[in-house]
Amino acid sequence: MPAFTLAGLYSHTRATTAALAAPLSDADATAQSMTEASPAKWHLAHTSWFFETMVLKAGLPSYQEFHPQFDYLFNSYYESIGERHARPQRGLLTRPSLDEVRAYRTHVDDAMTRMLAQLASHDQSEFAKLIELGCHHEQQHQELLLTDILHLFAQNPLRPAYHELEPPLAQPSSTPTPLNYTAYEGGLVTMGHDGSGFAFDCETPAHPVYVQPWRLANRLITNAEWQEFMADGGYQNPLLWLSDGWAYAQQAQWQAPAYWQHDPQEGWCSMTLAGMQPLNPAAPVCHISLYEADAFARWAGARLPTEAEWETVARAAPLQGNFAGSGFLRPLPAPPLTQDHPAQLFGDVWEWTSSAFSPYPGFRPEPGAVGEYNGKFMSGQYVLRGGSCVTPDHHTRATYRNFFVPSARWQFTGVRLAMDAA
Amino acid sequence: MPAFTLAGLYSHTRATTAALAAPLSDADATAQSMTEASPAKWHLAHTSWFFETMVLKAGLPSYQEFHPQFDYLFNSYYESIGERHARPQRGLLTRPSLDEVRAYRTHVDDAMTRMLAQLASHDQSEFAKLIELGCHHEQQHQELLLTDILHLFAQNPLRPAYHELEPPLAQPSSTPTPLNYTAYEGGLVTMGHDGSGFAFDCETPAHPVYVQPWRLANRLITNAEWQEFMADGGYQNPLLWLSDGWAYAQQAQWQAPAYWQHDPQEGWCSMTLAGMQPLNPAAPVCHISLYEADAFARWAGARLPTEAEWETVARAAPLQGNFAGSGFLRPLPAPPLTQDHPAQLFGDVWEWTSSAFSPYPGFRPEPGAVGEYNGKFMSGQYVLRGGSCVTPDHHTRATYRNFFVPSARWQFTGVRLAMDAA
Amino acid sequence: MPAFTLAGLYSHTRATTAALAAPLSDADATAQSMTEASPAKWHLAHTSWFFETMVLKAGLPSYQEFHPQFDYLFNSYYESIGERHARPQRGLLTRPSLDEVRAYRTHVDDAMTRMLAQLASHDQSEFAKLIELGCHHEQQHQELLLTDILHLFAQNPLRPAYHELEPPLAQPSSTPTPLNYTAYEGGLVTMGHDGSGFAFDCETPAHPVYVQPWRLANRLITNAEWQEFMADGGYQNPLLWLSDGWAYAQQAQWQAPAYWQHDPQEGWCSMTLAGMQPLNPAAPVCHISLYEADAFARWAGARLPTEAEWETVARAAPLQGNFAGSGFLRPLPAPPLTQDHPAQLFGDVWEWTSSAFSPYPGFRPEPGAVGEYNGKFMSGQYVLRGGSCVTPDHHTRATYRNFFVPSARWQFTGVRLAMDAA
Amino acid sequence: MPAFTLAGLYSHTRATTAALAAPLSDADATAQSMTEASPAKWHLAHTSWFFETMVLKAGLPSYQEFHPQFDYLFNSYYESIGERHARPQRGLLTRPSLDEVRAYRTHVDDAMTRMLAQLASHDQSEFAKLIELGCHHEQQHQELLLTDILHLFAQNPLRPAYHELEPPLAQPSSTPTPLNYTAYEGGLVTMGHDGSGFAFDCETPAHPVYVQPWRLANRLITNAEWQEFMADGGYQNPLLWLSDGWAYAQQAQWQAPAYWQHDPQEGWCSMTLAGMQPLNPAAPVCHISLYEADAFARWAGARLPTEAEWETVARAAPLQGNFAGSGFLRPLPAPPLTQDHPAQLFGDVWEWTSSAFSPYPGFRPEPGAVGEYNGKFMSGQYVLRGGSCVTPDHHTRATYRNFFVPSARWQFTGVRLAMDAA
Repeated sequence: MPAFTLAGLYSHTRATTAALAAPLSDADATAQSMTEASPAKWHLAHTSWFFETMVLKAGLPSYQEFHPQFDYLFNSYYESIGERHARPQRGLLTRPSLDEVRAYRTHVDDAMTRMLAQLASHDQSEFAKLIELGCHHEQQHQELLLTDILHLFAQNPLRPAYHELEPPLAQPSSTPTPLNYTAYEGGLVTMGHDGSGFAFDCETPAHPVYVQPWRLANRLITNAEWQEFMADGGYQNPLLWLSDGWAYAQQAQWQAPAYWQHDPQEGWCSMTLAGMQPLNPAAPVCHISLYEADAFARWAGARLPTEAEWETVARAAPLQGNFAGSGFLRPLPAPPLTQDHPAQLFGDVWEWTSSAFSPYPGFRPEPGAVGEYNGKFMSGQYVLRGGSCVTPDHHTRATYRNFFVPSARWQFTGVRLAMDAA
Repeated sequence: MPAFTLAGLYSHTRATTAALAAPLSDADATAQSMTEASPAKWHLAHTSWFFETMVLKAGLPSYQEFHPQFDYLFNSYYESIGERHARPQRGLLTRPSLDEVRAYRTHVDDAMTRMLAQLASHDQSEFAKLIELGCHHEQQHQELLLTDILHLFAQNPLRPAYHELEPPLAQPSSTPTPLNYTAYEGGLVTMGHDGSGFAFDCETPAHPVYVQPWRLANRLITNAEWQEFMADGGYQNPLLWLSDGWAYAQQAQWQAPAYWQHDPQEGWCSMTLAGMQPLNPAAPVCHISLYEADAFARWAGARLPTEAEWETVARAAPLQGNFAGSGFLRPLPAPPLTQDHPAQLFGDVWEWTSSAFSPYPGFRPEPGAVGEYNGKFMSGQYVLRGGSCVTPDHHTRATYRNFFVPSARWQFTGVRLAMDAA
Repeated sequence: MPAFTLAGLYSHTRATTAALAAPLSDADATAQSMTEASPAKWHLAHTSWFFETMVLKAGLPSYQEFHPQFDYLFNSYYESIGERHARPQRGLLTRPSLDEVRAYRTHVDDAMTRMLAQLASHDQSEFAKLIELGCHHEQQHQELLLTDILHLFAQNPLRPAYHELEPPLAQPSSTPTPLNYTAYEGGLVTMGHDGSGFAFDCETPAHPVYVQPWRLANRLITNAEWQEFMADGGYQNPLLWLSDGWAYAQQAQWQAPAYWQHDPQEGWCSMTLAGMQPLNPAAPVCHISLYEADAFARWAGARLPTEAEWETVARAAPLQGNFAGSGFLRPLPAPPLTQDHPAQLFGDVWEWTSSAFSPYPGFRPEPGAVGEYNGKFMSGQYVLRGGSCVTPDHHTRATYRNFFVPSARWQFTGVRLAMDAA
Repeated sequence: MPAFTLAGLYSHTRATTAALAAPLSDADATAQSMTEASPAKWHLAHTSWFFETMVLKAGLPSYQEFHPQFDYLFNSYYESIGERHARPQRGLLTRPSLDEVRAYRTHVDDAMTRMLAQLASHDQSEFAKLIELGCHHEQQHQELLLTDILHLFAQNPLRPAYHELEPPLAQPSSTPTPLNYTAYEGGLVTMGHDGSGFAFDCETPAHPVYVQPWRLANRLITNAEWQEFMADGGYQNPLLWLSDGWAYAQQAQWQAPAYWQHDPQEGWCSMTLAGMQPLNPAAPVCHISLYEADAFARWAGARLPTEAEWETVARAAPLQGNFAGSGFLRPLPAPPLTQDHPAQLFGDVWEWTSSAFSPYPGFRPEPGAVGEYNGKFMSGQYVLRGGSCVTPDHHTRATYRNFFVPSARWQFTGVRLAMDAA
């Protein structure tokens, strides 16, 4: 990650968010396509609210609140801060307009500029830490803004495109990299963040874990492989599925990954940020739930990796991949493999693990309101690793823990297989 | 009603709709606040779709469809025309934009101008009848556009106003007109539309009905009277309510009419198209369900009028009142009474009757797709009469039958009492 | 109706109820198959509670309450009497046992015998009227006990039989009576009960109604005719249906009347109180909703009769038919027609009318708790006429108004067609 | 555990089940109080179905199926065996009667006696293993039969008792054992079952786990301590709760553990298998969800133990406690503590751990239908340890993993606290 100053990190993050929202109309930025998703306008405002509430109101005495009701409207889930607007109603806020929300951002940015000028560039004050957290928080919402817009546009029969396919896609590879497994020694490994550089609280503390010997696939599962699973009745065979997953799949009538649609001429297509596009068979399968990933793994005679297995491999690999900065905004086929590391560990798609999102031994939430950031979500969710093609550059890392409920499909989620040692 | 030519009726209607939507942003016009309501943009497009589908595609050979998917997106409920977009999803259509919908309207208007030029001004051809129907259809959607925007804005904690209070409201009258009942002779009366001028199919045929002698209140029930009902425990006493109504009221936690909110300083206020405003005690109570109207009547020792009772009185009264053209867009206190007729029969608020919406003897739906207009809704709904302060001028009449489910509150609905003869 | 004394009516009614419950096990009498149905044990207890609460506690000073909690457990919906057990929970009351409920009945019967001895046989006191009402109320529950047991047994894959087919069914007639329509003059007719003999409050007062000339079918629609409707796509064509009905039918996946099941060997069968039985093509179709009846009528180019039309014809016909006393407990093919009256007006199946259940002009609920008997249900329901094969003998009459929501199918409901005059 | 032969284990298990069902009426044994619970009759039949399907049909050629539809009715969730009756409908099976189900049990027992006579007493054949599994499976249903009956009786306002309080309860101790924590060394420990004696597949394989040093409470949390939590606003403070837990608690309106009810005279009481009884302040709190247990731990400045922490302590402790065989069927106050081990590790209440129910490294489900026994439930559930006062004697062990969703409260579930090393 480039050596940003705190002020540099702040201005870069804020500018990136604004650029991501640039293609959206007022209406695009207002609609909410499901309770789990939020309007783009809400993402723009909430990330500003975070700085206003956590930093400016407490740390900049001259700060004037932008609007007396925005504290109510744009608090996400912070019980310690107060009452808030009901999440399923976010899409009804046609006012404030997108322009007003942009004015709110400018208002906060102006104040933050003054605030940052008062802090030394590597200040370890509580406020410096909160500003850094606020930037990483906003990066998370950059990704959510894109996933939520995709979900919204996918509900629209006109299938709008968020962006043009620039740069053009690589041609589908007719000979994808063969799927192989690399063996790893077990034993005591270290898991979790060691404190150098930024990390979210849930990545800490670093701690020893004993793992058995295991094998990990050299690349992600592709669309072509997923179609084999479908052709073999994967969505019709309950014996492949977790009980909850089977019940969910039946009720939701899943027959393919989210956003897939079969066209008589084109064959299987998928809704993307560039509109409806033919599937690339060599690209990683995307928009699958944990339930589907798990069923696929069972069908393949494999299993999902644990967090510890994944992290151990990823710690040794270079932190590079197809992130949002590449501009593709879709997962790409695995590049030619080197001997050293599995491909696609970072970027492309978030990789479901078999690990429930739970606290590391010795985990302590941060004091204050930001203590609600991760800890209270440690039930009912699975950990995903590695980032995706809509994750901001420099946001993720080997210890990074993303988490979603096992039925979630609207994130850029895929599957990498693991096995016990032969 | 002024003697519009068909072309005049068309252009007046279309211009009025456009004017009503003028204060709305793209986002305002896109959001859908509940399944029963539709986005303003949808109203703008659907009314154009009606002309495109019912008139232009069939009757103007040169007509070029505006967009191949609009037939799917903007069909409301016409099974005979084909598949359509799911109603609860209308608010997710951020595209087409409001500007594109306006372009659609212009495209249709241009073609309609050509079409109308081909029809004699009083032509009784099938197309002339369909165009006239389309105009009255669009007038209905003008009213819905306003009721749906009010519902949307009422969900927003910022309580946006659709318009400024122009002209200024009359001061609350401290001495409202006393409530009295006029007695009417019973016997055989004629009900339904006789065919002179436009009417919807459900108003026909005219037919004799035998009614017992009855009495009808000289004005609508006021907000002050409603507060007496509330103060006397009207919302807490199940013995006043229909069984379904009590169950609904309990589940929905009704304690006052829709949009009412108690403010420590201001007392009872109500959300209006001019934002949150103090209640006028002399104005008619508004935004009540049939269930509430019926409970109030029982509490008052009275009952709701039947359709036949209401229509018999209204046929003899002048067709004038506080309609949308007045610009108030809110119900007003009853004017000083003349000796001749009950006040407020037309305009202000739709008056719930005790009559289920059912076919008149000999009712025949229109042939073709427009036969789905009214007949298929003849179950589960109650008839309302008289129009409201958001009903377009010249739209309603003594025989006009509006209908909603008994729990509906987002329309401008109120109550006039009736009694059996003394 | 035979000239029962009040004591005779009471003892006959109570003995009939006990006999109807005799084939049931404790478990059969306890289960509740859906919210709208009640356990047989509950019917047995509630009808006793009615006498205990309305008559004994008020009118027999020496009466000792049987159990302090039965007032809570067995109050159905009387808000004026107090709190009550939640209806959907009735099936969880494994205690009191069936034997205890029978002991409750005996306890009430003993006290009622003392009470009745104090009243003159034709006493018109308030208590005599309440006892008479209690007997007719219990007769209604006799019918419900049978309809609810059929629904319960229909949920059981073992398809238990409530009774053996005694006497044996008539052979299916291969030449059912041809369907014809009798014409009736319109004009002013009298509707409603004139006060001689017992009637429920909702049948009063008698009042004039103006009806247009009409025609009424000479018999009920048969299973064979219903199969023609099905074969012609009746369940697939939305243009035949009310909008609410179509939505309900799609959601509930209706493809045939309730309880019908297609067997590869037997063809269409239906669950009956004698277990699963082959359909008799000449017997009346049964277990259809108002929505289906209405769609069938539209398909057939006819309509449902109004209450007034049905009652006018029925007043002139003999009050006889296939009631529960016949022991068949299933609708039978129409007998050979005489010239005088349509067949099957009484008994076999309740006939859906197109009339919403609403108050007659001048309707006044009874004073006291029994005022909740009918009036508060006058919304959202349709009137049915004529009684069924599970209606007790001597229970119904020409003015009798039964009522159910338009989606109800578990009652013995069928269809007779009507038309406007040719 | 006593050295049962396989035949002895079978006959003892079957007789115990029959004895547990003895106090129930046919109706008691038929009702289903919620989807998650099953009727007692269903437990009686399903456990017999297990032997019939897994053992007799495959291994006893002379076996005659008892009833052709029981395979459909009493299959719980085995997709590989075939279609089955819908779980939420189990309470509608008033037939077969309880007597018929007992006859089914006898029929299976007779055949099993023949089958067992053909197997050597320590036979390691597949069938011997399946019979042993079937016995442990039936023991699980013995516990469920009691928890489900308690839930059913708790819905009944009459509050029936399943048994009399025999032997009489110990008096509430006014001086409960002080709560202390014992410290344990961390390091590599072994977790999971080593294969000697019976275990369920999910307990295997034994494997090393690295644990940090920790402390474990010397007894369970008591009712008196839970009341302190309540008095301190534990149910009103969202900051103590997991996000999912808070949402669930608000929606379900939790204010106290399940079955608690406040009586003006008696104070807090709780529904038990002996009916409604005053709370014993020194007894362990029971019928709490994981969400509540977790909130309590946070309030107490502690946390829940992990599976590994609990198992490590329990392996060293004697396998004894207050199980169902004691006849109390309710949790008891902690006995005087010895120096050696925490009290109440086994019996009294199942102890929630912070561990999600997930597969051990190297976990392999059993081949065949019994492979569906545990593995497919490894999502969305938390592990509980130690058994309860309604767990059969000799059923549980240190490696035993019970599992329920985090909102479940109708099991006998409680809380033991843990902490990181000081």
